[in-house]
Amino acid sequence: MRDGYVHGYAPREQQRLQDQARSLADLLHHDTAYPAGARVLEVGCGVGAQTVTLARRSPGAEITAVDISAVSLAEAERAVEAAGFGNVRFLEADLFDLPFAPESFDHVFACFVLEHLAQPAAALERFIRLVRPGGTVTVIEGDHGLICFHPESAAARAAIECQAALQRAVGGDALIGRRLYPLLRAAGLEAVRVSPRMVYVDGSRPDLAESFTRDTFTAMIEGVATQAVEAGLADAAHFAAGVRDLHRTAEPDGMFTYTFFKGVGTRPA
Amino acid sequence: MRDGYVHGYAPREQQRLQDQARSLADLLHHDTAYPAGARVLEVGCGVGAQTVTLARRSPGAEITAVDISAVSLAEAERAVEAAGFGNVRFLEADLFDLPFAPESFDHVFACFVLEHLAQPAAALERFIRLVRPGGTVTVIEGDHGLICFHPESAAARAAIECQAALQRAVGGDALIGRRLYPLLRAAGLEAVRVSPRMVYVDGSRPDLAESFTRDTFTAMIEGVATQAVEAGLADAAHFAAGVRDLHRTAEPDGMFTYTFFKGVGTRPA
Repeated sequence: MRDGYVHGYAPREQQRLQDQARSLADLLHHDTAYPAGARVLEVGCGVGAQTVTLARRSPGAEITAVDISAVSLAEAERAVEAAGFGNVRFLEADLFDLPFAPESFDHVFACFVLEHLAQPAAALERFIRLVRPGGTVTVIEGDHGLICFHPESAAARAAIECQAALQRAVGGDALIGRRLYPLLRAAGLEAVRVSPRMVYVDGSRPDLAESFTRDTFTAMIEGVATQAVEAGLADAAHFAAGVRDLHRTAEPDGMFTYTFFKGVGTRPA
Repeated sequence: MRDGYVHGYAPREQQRLQDQARSLADLLHHDTAYPAGARVLEVGCGVGAQTVTLARRSPGAEITAVDISAVSLAEAERAVEAAGFGNVRFLEADLFDLPFAPESFDHVFACFVLEHLAQPAAALERFIRLVRPGGTVTVIEGDHGLICFHPESAAARAAIECQAALQRAVGGDALIGRRLYPLLRAAGLEAVRVSPRMVYVDGSRPDLAESFTRDTFTAMIEGVATQAVEAGLADAAHFAAGVRDLHRTAEPDGMFTYTFFKGVGTRPA
């Protein structure tokens, strides 16, 4: 699974994940705050992009952040320390083999994790077993089916499809956001609420065009260029044209939008 | 243009437009209210689906509602009268040949109108000339590129594409929402703000599944079945399968989402 992480582990990618987290933190996380003393498990914390926000919004919670990558964990630990938070402990573990007893946590949180798994339902069931009855599971995922931009570009669509295809090839699903509600319900959660979080960028928002359209989304697509070409999914020139066209949507007369879905459910008593 | 209105003028379609207006009124119109005495022009009022909401939210405004169809206007007049509002006058006119002097209005409002026009930019420029400097122009449009549902269905996608193709064939654009910001800016408006309005439906919202997924969106697609078959865009069985699959997304384990865009800009002083 480690080698299969579609976005890779390069330094530029780590910077991108940090940039993305800052520009999206409010949109995705403004309604997540755990009370003092709450035992919170973050699964798949990666480089800590969400962990810092989690620690900031729930300063009294006892957060355990796990990831399968020791390199990412070290980066996450540095990020949380640099931000001055002491309420997170880090642990290297596979999310399908977590070293915790059932009901060890009050809440589980996983952001951009299910999209990379061939068995998201099985993962969810494990998360649920780890929270006490009445505890919550929160998941956040995107959906590439809700990408929309202007000017339209077949090359840009093809480059995006390359990224989705690479994700599919390692068992993931870049279109998982639309399935969040049925997934959470089928896994046995109650009182499930899923809400869309749309990032909409036009010429009136040049900062967001920079931080989201260019530095978050387009950078993510650009980050799989080599993989896409090596996998025979695209030729380099056409892929580069797609990336150029995505940058074009960040111009003052362009438009770009992406939608994330946040789902929260409660473990039945 | 009258014959080219893609949705047609059948009674069921008129009911659909009224249903749609009620379920969407808050999402689309909660932030539109004109002050007492304001002279407001609604262009392309159709059967008055938005007019009733407009009159309710701006009870002191003097609203003029125009449409090219006398049949629709009569229906709109009945709807506004039935709702008990007396602040709307109705006028049959082509929006490219409106019988008003420049700067006759404080505000212009047009909902689901530009999507049907081959020359939306030219229409906008006419709207702008009709408002006084400092007055506003408000437009609301959807974008079929932001339709997302679960379970996925090629037949449903094909049926939706039929509707978009029929709209294109008469000069319209079912993907106009994404272009709203550049259109409003290019037409010369200032302080333009475009905001997405996403309708998100999952199993936790059975009423919305009924009123929006089934009775608004799917009914709209179903409404072009005969046209689509006659135009050779689809065979009847495949189209019907697509409609069935759209209804399927309204089931408790399904999901459906559509996004409208609302744009407001000010005529420069």
